[in-house]
Amino acid sequence: MAQPGSKSRAHSVARLVRPLVRHLHAYTPGEQPKIRGLIKLNTNENPYPPSPKVLQAVRAATDGRLRLYPNPTADRLRQGLAKIHGCATENIIVGNGSDELLAMAVRCFVEPASGGPKVAPTKTRPRCVVQYFAPSYSLYPVLADIHGAAKNAVPLPEDFSLPSVATLRREGRWRFDSALTLLTTPNAPSGRGYATSALDRLCREMRGVVILDEAYVDFAEENAMELALRHPHVMVARTFSKAYSLCFQRVGYLVGHPELIAALQKIRDSYNVNGLGQVAAEATLDDLGYYRRHFAKVIRTRERLSAALSERGFRVFPSQTNFLLVEPPVLPAEAWLEKLRERKLLVRWFRSEEVNRFLRISIGTDGDSAALVAAVDAILRLKGNRG
Amino acid sequence: MAQPGSKSRAHSVARLVRPLVRHLHAYTPGEQPKIRGLIKLNTNENPYPPSPKVLQAVRAATDGRLRLYPNPTADRLRQGLAKIHGCATENIIVGNGSDELLAMAVRCFVEPASGGPKVAPTKTRPRCVVQYFAPSYSLYPVLADIHGAAKNAVPLPEDFSLPSVATLRREGRWRFDSALTLLTTPNAPSGRGYATSALDRLCREMRGVVILDEAYVDFAEENAMELALRHPHVMVARTFSKAYSLCFQRVGYLVGHPELIAALQKIRDSYNVNGLGQVAAEATLDDLGYYRRHFAKVIRTRERLSAALSERGFRVFPSQTNFLLVEPPVLPAEAWLEKLRERKLLVRWFRSEEVNRFLRISIGTDGDSAALVAAVDAILRLKGNRG
Repeated sequence: MAQPGSKSRAHSVARLVRPLVRHLHAYTPGEQPKIRGLIKLNTNENPYPPSPKVLQAVRAATDGRLRLYPNPTADRLRQGLAKIHGCATENIIVGNGSDELLAMAVRCFVEPASGGPKVAPTKTRPRCVVQYFAPSYSLYPVLADIHGAAKNAVPLPEDFSLPSVATLRREGRWRFDSALTLLTTPNAPSGRGYATSALDRLCREMRGVVILDEAYVDFAEENAMELALRHPHVMVARTFSKAYSLCFQRVGYLVGHPELIAALQKIRDSYNVNGLGQVAAEATLDDLGYYRRHFAKVIRTRERLSAALSERGFRVFPSQTNFLLVEPPVLPAEAWLEKLRERKLLVRWFRSEEVNRFLRISIGTDGDSAALVAAVDAILRLKGNRG
Repeated sequence: MAQPGSKSRAHSVARLVRPLVRHLHAYTPGEQPKIRGLIKLNTNENPYPPSPKVLQAVRAATDGRLRLYPNPTADRLRQGLAKIHGCATENIIVGNGSDELLAMAVRCFVEPASGGPKVAPTKTRPRCVVQYFAPSYSLYPVLADIHGAAKNAVPLPEDFSLPSVATLRREGRWRFDSALTLLTTPNAPSGRGYATSALDRLCREMRGVVILDEAYVDFAEENAMELALRHPHVMVARTFSKAYSLCFQRVGYLVGHPELIAALQKIRDSYNVNGLGQVAAEATLDDLGYYRRHFAKVIRTRERLSAALSERGFRVFPSQTNFLLVEPPVLPAEAWLEKLRERKLLVRWFRSEEVNRFLRISIGTDGDSAALVAAVDAILRLKGNRG
């Protein structure tokens, strides 16, 4: 009888797992800092808590009802969202965070490629292709790999602007026939916002499903929700995590054509959205004024931090999100990551080539910004003395 | 520009969805009774609320932390569970309910069959087969269909007992080489318990992964956790939903070989278990005495209800769960469903041929039982007068 983990059975255990999964890289969970007093500017969480009314609603619902199954289709929440977005409940599906919905969309709209995942060569059947710009949300290639789909990662220009249809046609790498295109707007990690008119022009040329992933849109000047309600093949993903301070409770949603929504409903886990998450999201919709005041505050902090870092020699990309992408001076980005961490400031650095000269800094409170700027000054001073 | 739902575009919208998904039956969510004062004995929820300490822990955690991401791997909860089950945290993965983990297991261990889902003919590659007994948890065929796997549903004998290895070999329908076998133990919807020794004998003959789905095991005389810790290809699924009164918060887990657990971790959504669900489950482990007292209470109620229904001419199957499968007298089961509903008692009736002569009745409080028995008496009396 083999003990769990015993080496002798390793080979025979591995054979139980699909080759596709065996070849995936092990999942690396996001950094869970254990350092006391660390200022966490690495995962774009909102620095402000949920509204007191939301906390009160969750506490009030924490009673005997926890023994019962939650509403399987999050009906009350969908009704509230439908009212806000001017659509029907049939246009909306709620997920265990928008991540779950993105994963479901890959399974719903994209065929696995025979022979497992691959970078999309020109000949891959369009049905098997997940397409996205690089850089954008780093989850997309992971989802394609898990499903065994082909990936088509098309580089964004230097300034992270959205390429025109003419440019995409000329360069020939973009596939207008991809089964699924995932487009982060405003972009992450660059923070760059995209005009709805430009997104509309691109969407009109696409033959497969396009998901506009608006995780950060509440910090932007415009949103593209109208495109999901106008074009049958366009969907918009939203989340309560960031702007609405509910990361802990996992609630996101997709808006789109009822037939696409119905297809996603068919492959959904029966009770995918926990009950207290539904309660929290419903209460959020009743207190939007609270959140809008905080969006304005985050935007003001963002602009001040942008100016302060620019003054100190950082190249700061314009942001329509709750984070800044910056190219730091004097030292490589990875060295800045370490030096800031020594000073109890955690920011994000991505190893991938397209963005490894940059840091991504979440917008915290004004106090967090002041601490960051002070740390930057100290690091630059030390470097100046030593250099 | 087509409006969502407009018929004219229906054909072109449908083509955006994978044929596999297009051909799935639309998902039917569990019945959400709107009738006031209804006694809900249809979904095997615990009639007793979570422990006051659990409610207190959830309320105490309902604060600014809701803005932060939860622990992605539910580490504290896994540590607590590892201690209880005498294993390592690497033997455990936590899911958004055990349903999510069952769906992940299908995606992790089973290849989609070429040409879409099918009832497993003898020639289907074993790698593509999801196997289970019929009747058992009705989710299994749904999960196989969503994945495009082949299904092998092997009938249980009349009394729902576990067939011996010799019988399974003689009858020739059971596939000892299936990639994944899902086995509900104690069985649902029959309530029948299976001896660990019998499960062990069957597991030893299996070449693929076996998941022993112990959703109801806390109401049974024995459990088979030792098999998950002894055999590399055996896993045990558990849930906090039923026995621990946490349906609302979606927390389940799988115990098994670290290599199988690691494979599942790779395909998991990054933050699949909501934070307050983790808090509630952690607090549950600190107050197991409360729950054990309620298990004993549910079992006493079950035995009393079983006797009362037997006296009234119901055939009652022996149960090791928190529900009873019964064959009602005088009227067909579906008619009983309606007549009981008229009297504000909701029980479960399954349309499938193997079990459509039965009702499944969840065990509620003693008061719920009294109401049920009174309704049964009234229905029988009326029938007697009319007949």
